[in-house]
Order: sequence, then C-alpha cells, then structure tokens
Amino acid sequence: MSEAKDGTRPPIQPPNADEPDRNARAAWRVRLHEIIFEADTPAGWWFDVGLLVAIVASVVVVMLDSVASIRAEHGRTLLAAEWFFTLLFTVEYILRLLCVRRPASYALSFFGIVDLLSILPTYLSVLIPGAQGMVVIRSLRLLRLFRVLKLTRFVGEARQLRHALAMARTKITVFLSVVVTVVVIAGALMYIVEGDASGFTSIPRSMYWAVVTMTTVGYGDIAPVTPLGQFIAALMMILGYALIVVPTGIVSAEIAEARRGRRSTQHCSHCGLDDHELDAVFCRRCGDRL
Amino acid sequence: MSEAKDGTRPPIQPPNADEPDRNARAAWRVRLHEIIFEADTPAGWWFDVGLLVAIVASVVVVMLDSVASIRAEHGRTLLAAEWFFTLLFTVEYILRLLCVRRPASYALSFFGIVDLLSILPTYLSVLIPGAQGMVVIRSLRLLRLFRVLKLTRFVGEARQLRHALAMARTKITVFLSVVVTVVVIAGALMYIVEGDASGFTSIPRSMYWAVVTMTTVGYGDIAPVTPLGQFIAALMMILGYALIVVPTGIVSAEIAEARRGRRSTQHCSHCGLDDHELDAVFCRRCGDRL
Amino acid sequence: MSEAKDGTRPPIQPPNADEPDRNARAAWRVRLHEIIFEADTPAGWWFDVGLLVAIVASVVVVMLDSVASIRAEHGRTLLAAEWFFTLLFTVEYILRLLCVRRPASYALSFFGIVDLLSILPTYLSVLIPGAQGMVVIRSLRLLRLFRVLKLTRFVGEARQLRHALAMARTKITVFLSVVVTVVVIAGALMYIVEGDASGFTSIPRSMYWAVVTMTTVGYGDIAPVTPLGQFIAALMMILGYALIVVPTGIVSAEIAEARRGRRSTQHCSHCGLDDHELDAVFCRRCGDRL
Amino acid sequence: MSEAKDGTRPPIQPPNADEPDRNARAAWRVRLHEIIFEADTPAGWWFDVGLLVAIVASVVVVMLDSVASIRAEHGRTLLAAEWFFTLLFTVEYILRLLCVRRPASYALSFFGIVDLLSILPTYLSVLIPGAQGMVVIRSLRLLRLFRVLKLTRFVGEARQLRHALAMARTKITVFLSVVVTVVVIAGALMYIVEGDASGFTSIPRSMYWAVVTMTTVGYGDIAPVTPLGQFIAALMMILGYALIVVPTGIVSAEIAEARRGRRSTQHCSHCGLDDHELDAVFCRRCGDRL
Repeated sequence: MSEAKDGTRPPIQPPNADEPDRNARAAWRVRLHEIIFEADTPAGWWFDVGLLVAIVASVVVVMLDSVASIRAEHGRTLLAAEWFFTLLFTVEYILRLLCVRRPASYALSFFGIVDLLSILPTYLSVLIPGAQGMVVIRSLRLLRLFRVLKLTRFVGEARQLRHALAMARTKITVFLSVVVTVVVIAGALMYIVEGDASGFTSIPRSMYWAVVTMTTVGYGDIAPVTPLGQFIAALMMILGYALIVVPTGIVSAEIAEARRGRRSTQHCSHCGLDDHELDAVFCRRCGDRL
Repeated sequence: MSEAKDGTRPPIQPPNADEPDRNARAAWRVRLHEIIFEADTPAGWWFDVGLLVAIVASVVVVMLDSVASIRAEHGRTLLAAEWFFTLLFTVEYILRLLCVRRPASYALSFFGIVDLLSILPTYLSVLIPGAQGMVVIRSLRLLRLFRVLKLTRFVGEARQLRHALAMARTKITVFLSVVVTVVVIAGALMYIVEGDASGFTSIPRSMYWAVVTMTTVGYGDIAPVTPLGQFIAALMMILGYALIVVPTGIVSAEIAEARRGRRSTQHCSHCGLDDHELDAVFCRRCGDRL
Repeated sequence: MSEAKDGTRPPIQPPNADEPDRNARAAWRVRLHEIIFEADTPAGWWFDVGLLVAIVASVVVVMLDSVASIRAEHGRTLLAAEWFFTLLFTVEYILRLLCVRRPASYALSFFGIVDLLSILPTYLSVLIPGAQGMVVIRSLRLLRLFRVLKLTRFVGEARQLRHALAMARTKITVFLSVVVTVVVIAGALMYIVEGDASGFTSIPRSMYWAVVTMTTVGYGDIAPVTPLGQFIAALMMILGYALIVVPTGIVSAEIAEARRGRRSTQHCSHCGLDDHELDAVFCRRCGDRL
Repeated sequence: MSEAKDGTRPPIQPPNADEPDRNARAAWRVRLHEIIFEADTPAGWWFDVGLLVAIVASVVVVMLDSVASIRAEHGRTLLAAEWFFTLLFTVEYILRLLCVRRPASYALSFFGIVDLLSILPTYLSVLIPGAQGMVVIRSLRLLRLFRVLKLTRFVGEARQLRHALAMARTKITVFLSVVVTVVVIAGALMYIVEGDASGFTSIPRSMYWAVVTMTTVGYGDIAPVTPLGQFIAALMMILGYALIVVPTGIVSAEIAEARRGRRSTQHCSHCGLDDHELDAVFCRRCGDRL
C-alpha cells in the first residue's frame, strides 16, 4: 500500500548485490521498511497499532490543552506530553526517511508533508517566544492535528468509497454548480428584500444565510422577518429539500450499479474476454461457449 | 425466540423422566415458561400484550413524575403507581427466574439485567432516604426506563433491519472515521479562526459545533460571526450535505441487494438458468420442469 | 373513482325500469352524478376545476383573515367572501346528497364528513355570538381548512405513492419503535445530565428536544450547555443522521422493486397465469409456451 | 447547442449564394457565430472561458460592492470595474445580435433576455440619479446577477439531471401537493394551539414555521412553547422526516431505471433475448451472431 502512496519503493532486491557493505545496510533497512510501511508482519501490525494510539493520544492532548480550565490546572503535564509525542513523531519521521530508498520522494509525498507539519509547530514555538507570540504559537501547534489524517492510511475500505464518489463526480459537479448559482441569486434577492434590519447586511452574508438554509442547517442567527422574505425563504427550503434528493439518487444508483456489476469469473477460452454477465452461456464477443 | 436470547432452555422433555416429583414441578414450569417466554399460545400472547401495556404505563408514570406541576398535584398517586408497577415487575422477574431451567444464565443475559435494573432503583430509593439524596434517587429511578428496551423483544422484524445494517457495517465504519477526522480538523480550525467571542471557547466545544453543523441540526447556540468563519462553515455544510449522500447510497444498495436475493436457488437441469422466482415450477426459458 | 371512495353507486340502470316518474328523476340524477362525481366528461372536468379553484380561494380567505392588519382593513370583504364560499359549498353538499343513490353512505364516508365539516363552522359562528366567543368561532372556522383535503381527491397518482408506503409499512413501524425508544431514553438521560438550567425541565420536554435534535430540525430553543450533555447530544445527532439512512434505503428498494416488477402482459393460454417476467418464454407454472 | 436554445440558426450556406456582398458579410458573421456560439473550435473555446471568467469577476464586483466597509474604501474602483464589465457585456450583446441570422428570436430567447437584463440596470442607474434613488439603483444593479445564469450554458451534463427530474415530475408534483396540504393544516392548527405569544401571529406565519420545521431547517425564530404545541411539532418533524424518504426513493429508482436502460436494443434473431450489453456481438444465451 505504501509504495504507490508515498512514492517510494522498498529496497528489496537491490540491483547490484555485489557491494557487501551496502547490502548489510540494506538488510536492516528492508526490515525497518517492513515494520514501518507494511502491516502484514506481526511487528508491522503492532507498529501501526501503536502509532495509531500515539496519534489519537497526541490529538487528545492538543484538545485538552485548548480548554482553559484544564490548561490552568494541568498545563505542565500537557506540555510534557506535547513534547513527548513531538519527539516520538520526530524519531518516527527520521526512521521513515532512513528506510525508504528515495527519501526525497517520501518527504514530498502527501503523508511526508503531513508527518513534517505535525512536528514542526512545537519546535517553532521555542524559536518564536514571548507573550505576544502566544496565540500564534498555539494556532501553529494546532497544525499538528493534521496528524489525524494519518488515520486514513490505516483504513483500507476508504478506497471503495472514493471510487463510488469518483464515478458520480461529473454529476456532482453539475449539481454543485446549480447549488452555487442558486445560492448567489437567493443571497442577492434576500439582500434586497430583507435589508440590514434582519441581518442581511451584505450579499456575501446573505449567501452564507442561503447555504445555512438550503443545507437545512438553519442556525437562526440570520432569519427573514418580512412576509415576502419569509415566503422566498420557504420556497428556498423546499427547493433545498428537493436538491438533496437528486445527488442521493445519483450516488445510490452508482453504488447499486457497481454492485450489480459483479460479473461472472468465467474467461472465454477462445478470445479471453472475462467480463461476462452471471447468466452468460456464450461469449458475447466471439460467440464461443464459455 | 427466548431460548437463544436469554440463554435458557425450556424444561421440556427432561432426560431422566423417572422422577415423578420433579416431573410434577416441571409440568407447571413448562406451562409457565410457555406463557412467559413464548407468544404462540393464546395465554402467552395475552401475557405479552399485558406486559407491553404495563411497561408503557410505567414509563408514562416516570415521565409525568418529572413534570414539576404534575408532581406537585398528583405526587401521591404517581408514587403509588410507581410502587404498583415495581411490585408487578418484581413478581414477573421472580416468575421468570423460577420457570427457566438455568436461572443464572437468564439473570446474566441482556434482558435479565434490564429486568433487574428496571425494578432496583425504586427499592434503593427507600434505603437512601433524606432530602439531599432526592436528586440521586430520582435519577436512579429513571434507570427503570430501560424497561422500555423490553419493547424490542416483541418486535420480530427488527432483526431484518439489523441484518441490513450489519452488512453495510464496514463501510459505515469507514464513513464514520472520515466524519470524525473532519470534525476534529474543522473544530480546531474554527477554534483558531473564530476564537472565544462567538462561543468557540475550546476545541471540544468547537467539535460539538462541527457535529451540530455537519449533521444539519444547527441549533445556533454557537455560530460563526467572522466572514472567514462563515465561509469555512458554509463549506463544511455543503460537505456535510454531500456526506449524507454516501451512506444513504450504500444502505440503499445493500437493502436492494438483499431483496434481489429473494430468488429460488434452483437450477434448470436442461438449460441451466438459475434466476427463477420462488413459485416457479417450470423453467421460464426452456419450459423444462425444475 | 368516486364510487369506491364515497361508498356510493351512481344510479345507472335502476333495477325496476317500469316506473316512469322515478326514471325521469333518475335521468337528471344520473347526469348530475356524472358532472359532480366523474371527471371524464367535459362538464365533469370543468366542475372539478371550478371546485378546486373555489376551495383554494376559500382557504386563502381564511388565511388572510388570520392576519391582524388585513382583517382590520378588509374585514367586511373577507366576511362576505367567507359567507359566499360557505353557501357555495352548502349547495354543492346538498347536490351531492341528492344525486347519489345512498346519501347516508356518502354522508358517512371520509369526504362526506370533510365536506360537512368545511361548512359547519361558519353557521355555528352565528349561533354562538358574543365578544367572548370570538376566539372559539375563529378556531371553529379554521376547521373549514379541511376543505383543502378535498384536493387529494383530484390527484390520481397519490395512490401509487400510498401503495409504495404501504409495502414498506411493517419495516417503517419497526423503525419508528426504535426511534421512540431512543427518544425516551435520550430524553430521560438529558433530563438527568442537564437539569433545569438549560431548559430540560421535564422528561416530556427533554423528549421534545430529542425529537427536534434527531430529526435534525434543531431550533436551539433548548440546547445542552454542559460538556457531558453536549457530548451525548453529539452522539445522538450522529445516530439520528444514521437513522435517516435506513428508512431511505428501505423505501428506495421498495420503489425500485415495484418498478422492476413491471411484468410481461402476456397470459399463459394454458393455465391463465399472467404474472410473467419480461424475458419469460415458457409459463413458469405449467411449462406451456407463452 | 446554441441553436435549439437561442432559437437561432448559424448563417451557414445562405440559400441564394449569388450576392457577393452579402456573402462577404456572411463570411465574418459565420466566423463570429462560430466563436461566440460554438465551443468546438479553439477560438470558440477560449471565448467561452474568457466570458465565464468575466461573468464570475463581475458577480464578485457586485458582491464586494454590497459590503459596506469595502464600498467605503474601494467604492471608486468597484464603480469603474462595474462600468468596465457593463461595456464589455454590451459589446458582447451587440456582437451576438449581429452574427445570428434572426436577431429578434435571439433577443426574445431566455438567454437573450438574461443578457439584456444583465447590462440594463447599470445604464438605468445614470438616468435615475439622486440620493433618494440610491437604494432602487442598487437593487436594479443586482439584477445583473442574472448574468450568473449564463454559467449553466456551459454545463452540458445538466441536461441529464433535468431528464431524470422530468421523469419523476408527476410523482414529485403529487408529493408537493401533499406537503402543501400538510403545511396549510399544520399552520392553521399551530395558530390555534400556540397563539400570538410564541410568534404564531397569523396562519401564513404559522405556515412559514411549518415549512421551516418540515424541511428540518429549524431556525428557532418561531418555536412552540406550550406542551400541546411541542407535541404537535414533534409529530410534524417525524412526519417531515418520513416525507424526505419518499421522493428520495422515487428519484433513486428513476435514476437507477434510466441507468439500467443503457442496454443494446438488439434482439437475438435466434432465441429472442433482448437484454444485451452495448458491446455484445453474439447472444450470450444461444451464441448466435446478433
């Protein structure tokens, strides 16, 4: 899995095997690569689970640190935990760089950048000290939350979902264009109809309201008060209600299609075509009996 | 139904039938077991319906008791009703223990524990008296609401739904992981962007807001006020809108699949067609008897 | 359409045709019945359209009358319109009674009662006069809104939808039972956790909040303020989000099934079975060629 | 694409080709028509992309102009940009009129009117000057937002979605009738039950609340406060929840149906099977060439 994603190749079977020194180094690198990047050996599996626990724990630390009352009481403990996890992930990052064949391509891959971003902010918080820098540091530190993205690496089935979404992509794009157009027009309309009194102070703000309404979130921080505005809003809601139906139908059909697509595993012995329907008796390309 | 669920076996056909005394006891126990655990005899059916009514009535009593004005006026009546139902369910619990072959395995089964929890709090409220203990007692008494879970025992079709959900479980897990990741990142982002002024006082609280927003509930108790925050919120809403589409499609396809499966498993021995309706006697393609 | 619904039979072909007087009356009754109850003659179609317009207009009059500023200005006009429509519908009601063969069964049918309820309140407002009765009269008059139910009489396709819903009824019942159970438990839980301060003053009120939350309406009039309450609420929202998926999948599959069920119109000339799949060549019951 | 939509025909192959002068003019008109109305030549493609960018930019200018703080600071720049885009779209409009064969039918087509409406308001703002006219001008100028509708012209796939919706139109109409009826009755009911205190001041306003509730938007600007009102509202929410299920199922089935329809229309002349894949050359059942 890691190969395609990280743009790296495991250093298995080095082409010129006549350099004993390099082979020796390759041996532990291969072993390390197996542990860190693969999940099919016991050691690799335990490494992944341990990493997962560490990521979740470090995210929880950042969360707790953001609650004022908890920071006031356990600030020191949280800071220690913060540095513990940062050092742990730094070691992990260096090991990853060491054991892949082409460190540069790993470092520039998506998860390479995420891995780096998840440790940088804590180090930066030392270089940029001072009371006034506090807020900036805190926000930088939050970037470490990107660490959570690593979680998706462990989830294999996500690919199937991505595939189903990709198939319906064009239609969903059309759908989103229509939604954006409706949001712009509805926002402008409500800006004229309602005016400043009820919170529709600008078109962008009215568009924010339109999104809040059409997605049926409905905070109520901005709400129409004039009868005309309420009438337009009611129409928009029913439209938004109708809009949710279309993409649901599209994706349902797409997934059902993909599922129905489960084909016979027979191969035509004559022409080799292997994409037959389940009830096929003859090859649909060459007419040979399957 | 009760056998698998309660981990008990009705004492029908005891292995050594040469003990007349034990057989005599077994007779009324078998009869009682039939009434209490089975629903296919008239007596068993009426017992189930009566129990159902009693459960609903006792839940209504607890509800009414929580309304201050009603408790002030009808407090005594409600307390009497409370004790009436508690004693009724206690008798029922003892009878259940008596008529099953292995009382221990019933007592430790899911509904055994629920049955016990639904009567315990009322008795505990006597042991822990005093004004200051009032609130605790009231909350303990509410545990009796678990009694309502018994309702599911009477609903046979729930199993089908559970099956459909179980089939889609893996995909729904993936989906929930993505949702949790998005909620964590969105929560942290809004905490930085919006700050304390608009209610985003900590990351957990921002995550609560993210869930409220992405599920389109949208209370409005916390809502973004800065243009950037509103822009991010609008993107999140459209994303949440898109997210509802995926699991809907998955479950729809899963249920449609399960339904399509309702076909005969017969094969036509002549032409091999295997997609027959359940009542088919002859192959619809070649006319051969199945 | 009207026959089954109103429980009446048009007086076509009276059994004893030798009474000239009665036959003469039957003639205009048959004609009137055709106009009022059928929609397949030009006169009948125009009657239906006219009635539809009158119903909508009378509903609009009641609506406008409820707006204080409009009633203050156009009160007299609205009262006149009110009486005009009431008299119109009274005439229609009497004509309906006259032209059906069995007036009693029409009067007791669903639409017979609706027709009566839509004219009664206006007459009652004369009998119960006085300033203090005003509010009661106004509310009685609103019952005339049931007139709008007549609209459904003109919509033929509604039957198909009802059929699809009826097929999925059992499963939807199970689903609703689960929802009610979850609502009761969640309501009780939040009542204990949140208490009076944030609006959870009783279990019924907490259950109202649970419904508002799980259906993703989310008014925000009652919202959790404690961290634990917010955590439970967030779980409930995700659960509610998941719950919408199940019935959607069920109904989608049900409708798709009904649609796929579109069968061949062929009849088996041998055994008469007419429910064949589209690609059937032989009758699946008797094996005869179709 | 443009032909059917704009009701115009490109002036290719003029019937009487013996007028050299007119042919000369026709030459650049044909070329211009290709660039402006077609998107399959490089020039035409670049024209479309440039126009798209200009439309989006002009919409953004109108949006920014509506934000008070931005207008205060950059008012002059925005006004200049406004006039730049207006002149640009005016030139485009004139060119469109010049190069189509029948300018009148273009001018009266949907996009002809939209194109005109998107430039008119800016010119009108000069003719209707004065401080008191400001608001009117601003609102007129907003009509230029219809320009955004042009975007849909570039989206080809929208047609497929429209088709799927058109197929389900009758059923969606029935569904909307039921929704409107429920909204009217629920609005009237809540108007009686809740009264003026909680914001249900008139039936139309109660109907607005009913739409806000049933579409699960739930602003909370109007919310029931009496126990009975909350009970009715809870029922309505569950009903609204159920209502979203039906059209979702209908559209899902409709789209799945349309998709399944993507089959070859060929019949096997030997065995008569007609459910072949599009690339099938031989019948999959009997092996005969199609």
